[in-house]
Amino acid sequence: MNEQTTAAVVIIGNEILSGKTQDANVKFLGESFARLGIVLEEARVIRDEPATIADVINECRKQYTYVFTTGGIGPTHDDMTAESVARAFGVELVLNEEAAKRIGRGSRDITPARLKMAMIPEGASLIDNPLSHAPGFRIENVFVMAGIPSIARAMFGAIEHQLEGGATIRSESIDIYQREGDFAKALEEIASRHQEVEIGSYPFSREGRFGASIVVRGTDGARVEAALGEISAALSSED
Amino acid sequence: MNEQTTAAVVIIGNEILSGKTQDANVKFLGESFARLGIVLEEARVIRDEPATIADVINECRKQYTYVFTTGGIGPTHDDMTAESVARAFGVELVLNEEAAKRIGRGSRDITPARLKMAMIPEGASLIDNPLSHAPGFRIENVFVMAGIPSIARAMFGAIEHQLEGGATIRSESIDIYQREGDFAKALEEIASRHQEVEIGSYPFSREGRFGASIVVRGTDGARVEAALGEISAALSSED
Repeated sequence: MNEQTTAAVVIIGNEILSGKTQDANVKFLGESFARLGIVLEEARVIRDEPATIADVINECRKQYTYVFTTGGIGPTHDDMTAESVARAFGVELVLNEEAAKRIGRGSRDITPARLKMAMIPEGASLIDNPLSHAPGFRIENVFVMAGIPSIARAMFGAIEHQLEGGATIRSESIDIYQREGDFAKALEEIASRHQEVEIGSYPFSREGRFGASIVVRGTDGARVEAALGEISAALSSED
Repeated sequence: MNEQTTAAVVIIGNEILSGKTQDANVKFLGESFARLGIVLEEARVIRDEPATIADVINECRKQYTYVFTTGGIGPTHDDMTAESVARAFGVELVLNEEAAKRIGRGSRDITPARLKMAMIPEGASLIDNPLSHAPGFRIENVFVMAGIPSIARAMFGAIEHQLEGGATIRSESIDIYQREGDFAKALEEIASRHQEVEIGSYPFSREGRFGASIVVRGTDGARVEAALGEISAALSSED
């Protein structure tokens, strides 16, 4: 897994941290990156504060191949992502004519608040918003998208072709209705024989029954199959 | 809001980052902290890697009043949270007799894998697990809980009385079925007159209609009411 393409997701929004809103973007982006062979290394949920946003973006953009942000690019006073990204890159926030044109297409009138959404860091390129016109933007390896999940998904679809993934990661799983403590040793032995794949055990409780999903992930499909076959044979025969 | 009690949540688990599992703990903990008057400053989702876990815990425990982790305290080979927390604090991982006893109570047999769940950083105190016995633990300002949401909730309930909150934060909201660009200016004017409360606008799309939840938060209920009243009068009369 050398030279693995990596990513971080930065969710910007007090509403997620106050528990008002359930985030859905991490799951969607995580699935998308896995499909593209990109490893999502971390996700951070942070507050709508320019200094915090700029710091986290600067930390992540140096560390990972790609950084995706969602949230904070609307027209209201608490939307601070664009100015914070400009600050992170040390560039000006400038009126983007193309963005203004698109925003005009989607609205009855171009209020000053709407024009705020056309203020884009200098040097950034736009990310299409097929749903509600106001675009996101990309600057170097940072992709800035809307927070509403349907719009974030549409924007991701618009820039997906720009991403260079690694080998696609194959992921297979089986659910075992045993307690982890009963199969942990057998699983560890199998994991030590199959170090070329990643084997995870994720406990769950469903309708009062405890069990675990055993997930095998790797770039070589045959090796994923082989490990999964051993797990299935060893764990299904217990209990 | 001086001397505000703050918290960070650290979600440990590759399954969240790969998009396999939808996290539910950030929302629950965010709601709980808000109720207790604790500001959740950030949430991080990180991989099951000891060095990463230790680094993030060390970063957060210096910065915030409380740190809560979920995930990675089970019996399988990929559960690495306890050893990582011990590493972060520079202490040994030792067999906790009381934890071993509780684990024995919940299981048919104490396998070596199960005993792994009784290995707790030296100096930590246990967090009760009313659901499946294997405890979490607290060391200084770091609370280590299970990842399964039902168990995380039960554990939180068991230690909630240990937390010192600030003034309870009152939160009220109204939904406006207008586009943000149409009311942003009016809202900003109200926000500038009510700087003692936090006013957020969170856009949504429901069944194809765009709108926004306007949320007013603050420790002084009368001021929250006053701001909300102005918003309601100003925005509902438009359109």
